Amino acid sequence: MLGSLPSFARLVAELSKLPGVGGKTAARLAFHLLRTTDSDVEALADALLDMKRKVRFCSRCFHIAEEELCQICSDPGRESQRLCIVQEPQDLLAIERSHAYRGLYHVLHGALSPLDGIGPEDLKIPQLLQRLQDEQIEEVMLATNFTVEGEATALYLAKLCKEQGAKVTRLAHGIPSGSDLEYIDAGTVQQAVSGRREL
Amino acid sequence: MLGSLPSFARLVAELSKLPGVGGKTAARLAFHLLRTTDSDVEALADALLDMKRKVRFCSRCFHIAEEELCQICSDPGRESQRLCIVQEPQDLLAIERSHAYRGLYHVLHGALSPLDGIGPEDLKIPQLLQRLQDEQIEEVMLATNFTVEGEATALYLAKLCKEQGAKVTRLAHGIPSGSDLEYIDAGTVQQAVSGRREL
Repeated sequence: MLGSLPSFARLVAELSKLPGVGGKTAARLAFHLLRTTDSDVEALADALLDMKRKVRFCSRCFHIAEEELCQICSDPGRESQRLCIVQEPQDLLAIERSHAYRGLYHVLHGALSPLDGIGPEDLKIPQLLQRLQDEQIEEVMLATNFTVEGEATALYLAKLCKEQGAKVTRLAHGIPSGSDLEYIDAGTVQQAVSGRREL
Repeated sequence: MLGSLPSFARLVAELSKLPGVGGKTAARLAFHLLRTTDSDVEALADALLDMKRKVRFCSRCFHIAEEELCQICSDPGRESQRLCIVQEPQDLLAIERSHAYRGLYHVLHGALSPLDGIGPEDLKIPQLLQRLQDEQIEEVMLATNFTVEGEATALYLAKLCKEQGAKVTRLAHGIPSGSDLEYIDAGTVQQAVSGRREL
């Protein structure tokens, strides 16, 4: 039925590629966009291209940034002797929202998953080891997700970081097993940060 | 936290304007787009602008179209003496998917709603009356939604269309396919009982 509307059908197809957006939702979004003003649609298209042009990863911690270093790495007020390891930038944002941590971060961009063929070299683990050598890190706080892959990654990193002489802590249990940090409320994250324990 | 990332924050803000997309979903979509290839994001931005440039409304029935007339109005195989009235283009597509109707359409782009200040002049009702004068319409099938506004619009149009000499029908009201009677609301069951037909 959309065969005579190639531009509309193409927009529906492109929107369907977004995570959690099926064919019906894509059509609903496309009809909404059809009704909004030209300038609103142009603003969305421009925001897409502008984000893609400008956003990159911090060369030190691999959080998202628009400069060489992210906002946190370039903030002299952060406790540079503490390093929090997270899987994704979203997880970093969740910890920042808790206001319970003032150190630096290292974003792995994933977790170890041998079944999916994801090993240490596929994550930012070599860069983490380099930082442990180059920087004066006293504490490594492991904040990978409390999933099978996240726990395995935490155990793996605990061993490596201890070999480098750092004190290693893990976010306290209190965060339910099987959850993604990204979706946990700030209060729970705060409890987990203050209750972190040495491994 | 996204203060140092104006382009990312702007994309999240633009995505949040979409219906059914809250702040968290917008952030999730933005992170997804951050990870996809440049060409995928460019394809989405281009599809947005292209749709907005090309899609307009059929000058006869007000369905979406890329030409002066939509695919249905320009199809000589359709039964031009039948006219189905729907609220939105999406409703037209739902009827087309049923393959039960071969006539033409008229899209109102809304329903009467005095409380919201939506009267006949705010919908494509004047254009409908003009079509009833200009075209040889034998049957008007009212397919507005089965909501308070849709029913009121159907009643209003039934009166107007009968004055123009057309036979007026309404989509059957009853129990949907695949339902358990137990879970159907009393109003629908009442309609189904009073509209029962002999087998």
